Amino acid sequence: MSVGLVVVAVCIGLCATGSVGMALSRTKAYDEVRAAIVDAEAGYGLGGKVFLSSEELRVDRMLRAMKKDELQSSDRGLPAAGMHFFDAKPLIENSSVFGALRLMPKGAILHLHNSAAVSSSWVIKNLTYRQEAKLCTVADRYYFTVRPHNNCPESETRPIADMRRERQKDVAAFDAWLETLINMKLKPSRGGHATIDELWSDFESCFDAMKGFLQYKPFFEAYHRRLLHEFYTDNVYYIELRMSFAKVFDADGREYGAAEVAYALYHIVEDFRRQHPTFQGVKLILAKHKNMSDADLENALKLYESLSATFPGFVVGFDLVGQEDLNRSLRSFASLLLQPPISSGPPAYFFHAGELVGYFSDADENVIDAVLLDSKRIGHGYALLKHPILWHTVRRKQIVLEVCPISNQVLGLVRDLRNHPASFYVAQNLPITITSDDPGFWDAVGVSFDYYYAFMAIAPQTGLGFLKQLVWNSIRHSSLSDEERQNITATMEQQWALFVRELAGEAKAEV
Amino acid sequence: MSVGLVVVAVCIGLCATGSVGMALSRTKAYDEVRAAIVDAEAGYGLGGKVFLSSEELRVDRMLRAMKKDELQSSDRGLPAAGMHFFDAKPLIENSSVFGALRLMPKGAILHLHNSAAVSSSWVIKNLTYRQEAKLCTVADRYYFTVRPHNNCPESETRPIADMRRERQKDVAAFDAWLETLINMKLKPSRGGHATIDELWSDFESCFDAMKGFLQYKPFFEAYHRRLLHEFYTDNVYYIELRMSFAKVFDADGREYGAAEVAYALYHIVEDFRRQHPTFQGVKLILAKHKNMSDADLENALKLYESLSATFPGFVVGFDLVGQEDLNRSLRSFASLLLQPPISSGPPAYFFHAGELVGYFSDADENVIDAVLLDSKRIGHGYALLKHPILWHTVRRKQIVLEVCPISNQVLGLVRDLRNHPASFYVAQNLPITITSDDPGFWDAVGVSFDYYYAFMAIAPQTGLGFLKQLVWNSIRHSSLSDEERQNITATMEQQWALFVRELAGEAKAEV
Repeated sequence: MSVGLVVVAVCIGLCATGSVGMALSRTKAYDEVRAAIVDAEAGYGLGGKVFLSSEELRVDRMLRAMKKDELQSSDRGLPAAGMHFFDAKPLIENSSVFGALRLMPKGAILHLHNSAAVSSSWVIKNLTYRQEAKLCTVADRYYFTVRPHNNCPESETRPIADMRRERQKDVAAFDAWLETLINMKLKPSRGGHATIDELWSDFESCFDAMKGFLQYKPFFEAYHRRLLHEFYTDNVYYIELRMSFAKVFDADGREYGAAEVAYALYHIVEDFRRQHPTFQGVKLILAKHKNMSDADLENALKLYESLSATFPGFVVGFDLVGQEDLNRSLRSFASLLLQPPISSGPPAYFFHAGELVGYFSDADENVIDAVLLDSKRIGHGYALLKHPILWHTVRRKQIVLEVCPISNQVLGLVRDLRNHPASFYVAQNLPITITSDDPGFWDAVGVSFDYYYAFMAIAPQTGLGFLKQLVWNSIRHSSLSDEERQNITATMEQQWALFVRELAGEAKAEV
Repeated sequence: MSVGLVVVAVCIGLCATGSVGMALSRTKAYDEVRAAIVDAEAGYGLGGKVFLSSEELRVDRMLRAMKKDELQSSDRGLPAAGMHFFDAKPLIENSSVFGALRLMPKGAILHLHNSAAVSSSWVIKNLTYRQEAKLCTVADRYYFTVRPHNNCPESETRPIADMRRERQKDVAAFDAWLETLINMKLKPSRGGHATIDELWSDFESCFDAMKGFLQYKPFFEAYHRRLLHEFYTDNVYYIELRMSFAKVFDADGREYGAAEVAYALYHIVEDFRRQHPTFQGVKLILAKHKNMSDADLENALKLYESLSATFPGFVVGFDLVGQEDLNRSLRSFASLLLQPPISSGPPAYFFHAGELVGYFSDADENVIDAVLLDSKRIGHGYALLKHPILWHTVRRKQIVLEVCPISNQVLGLVRDLRNHPASFYVAQNLPITITSDDPGFWDAVGVSFDYYYAFMAIAPQTGLGFLKQLVWNSIRHSSLSDEERQNITATMEQQWALFVRELAGEAKAEV
C-alpha cells in the first residue's frame, strides 16, 4: 500500500462508525491498516527502500533482535543509548550490536578535524614520551610544544621528560593529568550542568594544547600516520579532513608553508595506501576560524585557490569553524563568499551551520546562508529542525547533513541522544551521513561509537538497510572523482559482502 | 512568494554559477531569496498565518523584543528556557515575557489530572491543617487520609495535628517534609540522573499520597474549588479534567458513588460560574489506569456509558493512563475499545500515547493505535516524531497533540526543552495545544509556565501569532458544544482584546 493510500485508509476506512454488525470487519480492517502503517513507516524513512539480499535479510533480523534485546534490558536501567557517552562507553564496548558495527565497513568519514582526530591516550603514550616534547605554562593554561613560540616563551617551557622524572613515583597520575589537557572527559565541565560557553572554552583549550605538537614535522607525520591507522582499523576507507594548514618546522628548524604541509600529508597518505590497498585515501578541506576580518577571509580564500590549483583533487573544499553564536555569522561574510577573489569562482563549500540548540540568534540562521551559498554539505545542521522551508531545499538539492552525535552531546546541545533532531531527518529521509568530528578529544576512536548512537538512539526502529544507506550516503556525498568513486565502490562492495557473510555465519550458528 | 516558489528560487536562481559580470545581481538575488525564506518560514509554522491587527502587531514586536532580550542575556549564562523548571522557576517568575503570558487569556486547558492539579503548598497549608487530616505510614510509604481504608489500617494512622504538635519547634520543617509527599521537586529522584522508572515511581507515590484526602467529601470540594480558582486566576476559561471517579464519603460516613461524585463536582463548577461569569466551566474525561484486565476495562466502559448518559455534555470522554512502557499497550485492548459494550458505540477517546523517549518497544506504537482508535486528541504524542506516516494522518484528521512541556521534563523524557519534539510539530504546523498535566506536583500553578517554555524553548522564532493560534486551538479542539463554543469565543474575544490593549499600552509607553 502506498503512503498516500495508508493515510487515506486511516482517515476513511476506520473513521466511519459502523453498526455493531460491522464490528468484525472493523477489527479485521484495524489489523490490516495497522500492519500497513508499520510497513509504510519502515519503508518511508532513511534506508527503508534499500534492497537487501536473502543473506542480508538474515543479518537484518539478527541485528534487530540484538538491538531489541539491548534496548529492553531486563533490569530496566537506562539503556546505553540514552546515556552520556562518558558513562556509556564501557557498556557500549560490551555490546554485541557495537561489535557488529565495528566490523562493518563504514565507507567515508566526511567531517573530521585533523588535530582532534587521534585518541588522546595515543598522544600521551607516544608523542609526550619523545625526547623533544615540552610543556609550556602561561597564565594557568598548558600547551604541548617542541620549541618556543609566540604564546610560549622559553622561560615558561619545560621538557616533559624532566617533569616526568620528578614524578617518578606517580608517573601514571602525571600522564593522566597530561591527558586532561586534550580530553573533554577529564575536564571540569564534564559534570553535565556546564553552559555551552564553558564546554566550548574547554574544547578550544584542547585544540590550543595540541597545536604546538602538530607544528613539529616528525610529530605531525607520526600523528597523521596514527590517524589513518585508527580510522582504517575502524573499517573506514576514505576520509575528508578539515585542517587549517598551519606552518610546520623540522628538527633542523626549517619551516614548511601550507603547500609543503599538504605535500607532506600527501606522501603519508600515499605510503599508507601502498601498505593498505583497500584504503582509498584522504582529501583536505581548508578550515579557518570564523573569528576573523574580511581581509583575513580574503587571504584564506586566496590560500585555498593556490592550494587547490597545486593539489587538484586533494585540496577540495573550504569551511569556516568555531562556536557559532560567539563568532561572526556566515551572513556577515556572504558577499565575499559569493564573489571570492578567485578567478575560477567560489570553492566547494562545506560550511558548519546550525550547530546550536535553537536560540533566537543570528547564528541560528547560518543554516539559511549555508544553503544559499550552495554549500555541498552542512556540518551538523542541528538547528535545521526549526526551519521548515529549508528542509525541502536541503532534500531537493540533496545537501547532506554531517551528523556528529557524540560531538553534539559532549558540546552540550543534547544530553539524551534519543532526542537528537536527526531522528526527524531519518524519519523524513533527508540525506545524512554519520561522522565523528573530534573523536580524539572524547575517547571515541574512529566512528563506530557514533554509528552506535545513530543506530540505537536516533533511529531505534531501523535495521541493516539504514546502516547500508548511511554507508553508501557517505560515498555518494563525498568529493571523490568518478574514477575514485568506482574504485571505492568496488572495494566497499567486497568488504560489505565479507561483513555480511561473517554476520550471516553467526546468525546461522545461532539457529 | 509561496513556499514552492521559495524552494525553487533557492534551487535554480542561485545554484547556477554565473560569470563575474553577474556578481552584483547575484548578491541582490541572494538578499531577496534570503528574505523570502525568512518570511516563508515565519508564515509556514504554527501561528504563521494568523491575522494580527495593527495593535496586535505592535504587541507582537514588543513581545519579540522582550523574548530576544531574554534569550540573549548579556552574561551568556544558560537562558531559563534551557534550564530544568526546578532551577528556572525563580528566573521565569522575574521574566517580563512570563508577566505577559500570565496576563494572556489562555482559553481551554485540555489535559489535566484532577488529583495533581492544585499546588502542593495549598494542600499542605489548608487540608493538612484541618482537624480531620491524618497521615498513615505503611512500609515506609505515606498516605494522607481521613479515615482508615484498605492500605491504611487504623493502627498505622495518626492525626496530623498531633504530629505537628510534637514538632512545635520546627513546624516549617515538618510542613516542608509533608510537601515532599506530593511534590516531585522535593523527591530524591530530582537530581537529574534518575531513570524514567524511578521518576514514575516517585510520581505515582504522589498520587497515592493524595488519594485518601480526595475521598473525603469536604476535602474533595475544597480542593476542586481551589482548582478552579488557580486556573481561573491564571486566565484559563475552560477545563477538561481527567479523573477516575473514585468513591467519596462524607463526615457522617455516607458513601457517594461515581454518579454522585460527578454531581458534586457539577455543583461546585456551577457555583464557581455564578461567581465568575467569564468562566465557561468544566467537562470530565473518565481516566482509568492501563494496568487492568479486559474485564476491568469492560466495567470501566460501562461506567462511562452510564455517567455520560446521566451527565450528557459533562462527562464527555474516556482515557487510559499510567507509565506506557510498564503497562498494557493500547493494542492489547484494541478489540474491546473498537467494540465496547456500549449500545451507542465507542466513547470519544482522548488517549495518552507516545509519552516516551523512543524505545524500540510496543509502547512506542501506542500512537499508531490512538490514531486507529479514532482518538479525538492524543495525550503527549512525544514519540510521534519518529512516525513519519502518522504525521500526515494526524494533520489530515486534525488530531490535536496535547503537549505538556514541563511534565515531559520532570518525568525525564527531555532535559533541555529546546530539544522537545514539539519544535517539529510547530515548524510543520501540526495541531498542538499547550497544557499542564499535573502542575500541582511540580509547583507550576496553572499553565503559564508551560506556555513560557512553549514560547521560549519550543518555538523561539515565534511571536503573538503563535500564542493566538495556541489559544484558539485549545477552544477548537475542545469538547464544547456549538452553543458553548460560541459563548466562550465571545468571552475570549473580549478578554483577548483587553489583553492586547493592556500590552499595547505598555508598548506605546515605552516608545
